[in-house]
Amino acid sequence: METLWSQRYALRSRRMQSSVVRELLKLTQKPDVISFAGGLPAPEIFPVEQFREAADRVLVQSGAESLQYSTTEGCPQLREMIARHTSRYGIIVEPENILITSGSQQALDLLGKVFVNSGDRIALERPTYLGALQAWNAYQAQFLGIGMDDEGMRIDELESVLRSGPKFLYALPNFQNPSGVTMSLQRRQSLVEMADHYGVPIIEDDPYGQLRYEGEHLPSLSVLDARARDDKPFSGNVIYLSTFSKTLAPGLRLGWVVAPVEVIQRLVLAKQGTDLHTGTFVQMVAYELARGGFLDRHVHHIRSVYGERRAAILAALQKHMPDGVRWTRPQGGLFIWAILPEYLNAAEILPEAVEMRVAFVPGSAFYDDGTGQNTMRLNFSNAPPEKIGEGIKRLGDVIRRAMERRSKSTGRRSTD
Amino acid sequence: METLWSQRYALRSRRMQSSVVRELLKLTQKPDVISFAGGLPAPEIFPVEQFREAADRVLVQSGAESLQYSTTEGCPQLREMIARHTSRYGIIVEPENILITSGSQQALDLLGKVFVNSGDRIALERPTYLGALQAWNAYQAQFLGIGMDDEGMRIDELESVLRSGPKFLYALPNFQNPSGVTMSLQRRQSLVEMADHYGVPIIEDDPYGQLRYEGEHLPSLSVLDARARDDKPFSGNVIYLSTFSKTLAPGLRLGWVVAPVEVIQRLVLAKQGTDLHTGTFVQMVAYELARGGFLDRHVHHIRSVYGERRAAILAALQKHMPDGVRWTRPQGGLFIWAILPEYLNAAEILPEAVEMRVAFVPGSAFYDDGTGQNTMRLNFSNAPPEKIGEGIKRLGDVIRRAMERRSKSTGRRSTD
Repeated sequence: METLWSQRYALRSRRMQSSVVRELLKLTQKPDVISFAGGLPAPEIFPVEQFREAADRVLVQSGAESLQYSTTEGCPQLREMIARHTSRYGIIVEPENILITSGSQQALDLLGKVFVNSGDRIALERPTYLGALQAWNAYQAQFLGIGMDDEGMRIDELESVLRSGPKFLYALPNFQNPSGVTMSLQRRQSLVEMADHYGVPIIEDDPYGQLRYEGEHLPSLSVLDARARDDKPFSGNVIYLSTFSKTLAPGLRLGWVVAPVEVIQRLVLAKQGTDLHTGTFVQMVAYELARGGFLDRHVHHIRSVYGERRAAILAALQKHMPDGVRWTRPQGGLFIWAILPEYLNAAEILPEAVEMRVAFVPGSAFYDDGTGQNTMRLNFSNAPPEKIGEGIKRLGDVIRRAMERRSKSTGRRSTD
Repeated sequence: METLWSQRYALRSRRMQSSVVRELLKLTQKPDVISFAGGLPAPEIFPVEQFREAADRVLVQSGAESLQYSTTEGCPQLREMIARHTSRYGIIVEPENILITSGSQQALDLLGKVFVNSGDRIALERPTYLGALQAWNAYQAQFLGIGMDDEGMRIDELESVLRSGPKFLYALPNFQNPSGVTMSLQRRQSLVEMADHYGVPIIEDDPYGQLRYEGEHLPSLSVLDARARDDKPFSGNVIYLSTFSKTLAPGLRLGWVVAPVEVIQRLVLAKQGTDLHTGTFVQMVAYELARGGFLDRHVHHIRSVYGERRAAILAALQKHMPDGVRWTRPQGGLFIWAILPEYLNAAEILPEAVEMRVAFVPGSAFYDDGTGQNTMRLNFSNAPPEKIGEGIKRLGDVIRRAMERRSKSTGRRSTD
């Protein structure tokens, strides 16, 4: 039905598309579907009891304060805690360098609002986090994709993109969403040096950095950048983003930005007009919950649970995937990336998969240029190990049948 | 200090200015300042005990769900409740017509994102809500201010603005922020008819509608519009915004939009890229708290407390303001608007006022064109009646002295 609004949408609104991931979540919420779609934490390990105690303490001790308006920058005690935690990785940041956001997604939106003019070019990994493409599409950005291998961004492609003068570069160095790839230390160092050389600042998105199940922690781009420039006070070329969504609970919608003070001030102005401030109550509950070492202990527990699930999905892939399918072996995070033979299209396989009660996200959603049709993202954090095994078995069957159909129709061997 | 970011701010970022109100809040948080600045609810009547019970029930009964990601549209039970409440005013809306937002401020931002191209003109009251100017400045809107009298927008100015083809019109018909003015029924009817006639859709912002201390409830613009067009399903020319900030607690950051389904769908796409969704936990707590009649009872209580404070400020103004100062007598809401003699500038008086331990917001902040220098906004919800009396006495003294200084320097009588 036409209304007076129908003809009035802004140009940018025409570029906003529904996230395939979110539309899929609707399909996959049926209880008998084993879903590798979405990026949902395991709900059974949310620290519900500790949340009850923390919420109660906040309301008893600071009831009126926790329900009142508060500052756009975020609650002081939470900013202090985050500055302290950030500083333990060898980078000196003060609470003034921290902005609390309504999830990391809001940080991406605010950065778009503050930095992106229509037509500005943003360098990013190909594939990359869908939510970043969505956030910056709204500001009519152009994207310069940089191909990846097992060590992260390919340095040859990176250099030519940096030389072309993008507004900034966006990277997820740890257990990237969607590919699961971790950028090697050497690549990190090269990236930081080259970005500085060509004068291109970096946005580093690190939602999963603490969820490592194997291997050694690698220094973040922001730490490498600060070290290289003996950076006091923090004035980084690198803006660092993280979140409580994967370590406490995504339903709080709490993330943060670490940036030079002048950038924080601009982001604060943008946030004032966007939502005034992030909820006071949830900030105080998160602080109450995280302080005193609980967060570290809880992350330790998450690691052991997700580490087991990662082992389960890798074993199941080994057992059930037909020849010709490859996948990444991430050292942490929530996602595995599977690559089908080039002649298959993951989106075309999805309906049959859902019929067989298994779901995934077609990888093309994560490509700024719409390529990647033969890829899929598999989440392993949400389902318990036994379900993971059964789900991958179903998925293997679906893929095998698709390969056989193709083989029959073209006379081609399924392992091509 | 210059960083790589310093030269990269987007054009729109240069138009973002800090809200005078929010900067002032910092000054006025000292305990001995009696503040009529801000728009803060009275913290002592937040239903803290009921929040404790509601938060506990949510975590016991639906702990995992309340901490998990949820849909961009908002929690189903909360959308149903709001649809039901909206429908009791004689307008038929379904949950599909409701979007939950992170406060009303986010609704303004999302509407800007979806509707406002750079240079688009928006018709609005002069003065108007500062947060709307901030939100739409970020999308590089132009503003067409419409003067007001005691009954709201002046119809003569309104018609010429509507004829000039603005993208939409923005109005706060109930106890407007900042002026406290309520649009009369006749003006509401004229506005709805004229906007329909000239094909200009309306955004109706109604944060205070339930906080009426005197007189009869007037139908909202959205209800008048729906009635005029026998509107089923809801396909209004009027998008309606409201919030729990003034009836439950602003620290939750919970508001909502009522709009035609096609508009909701566009706003949902914009919200996906902006913050994925509003916090699950606070939505469920608000629902748990509001259901079963508690919200109605609590609003009744708020009305009695704020009604008393309104009486206190009106009595104090009568007693302490020098001749030549006028003010509005709002029937509800949180604000009184004071008009000083034209030769005075409220912003210039503010430092002396703060020195005398009393604060207000200079009215020019609420004018799209920077006029209104001789006006001030006075909030009466935050301080108890005895403090209100003392604060207005101090403010009266400050204004009287400013009038006397002026009178001496020009030989002009202070009552001019």
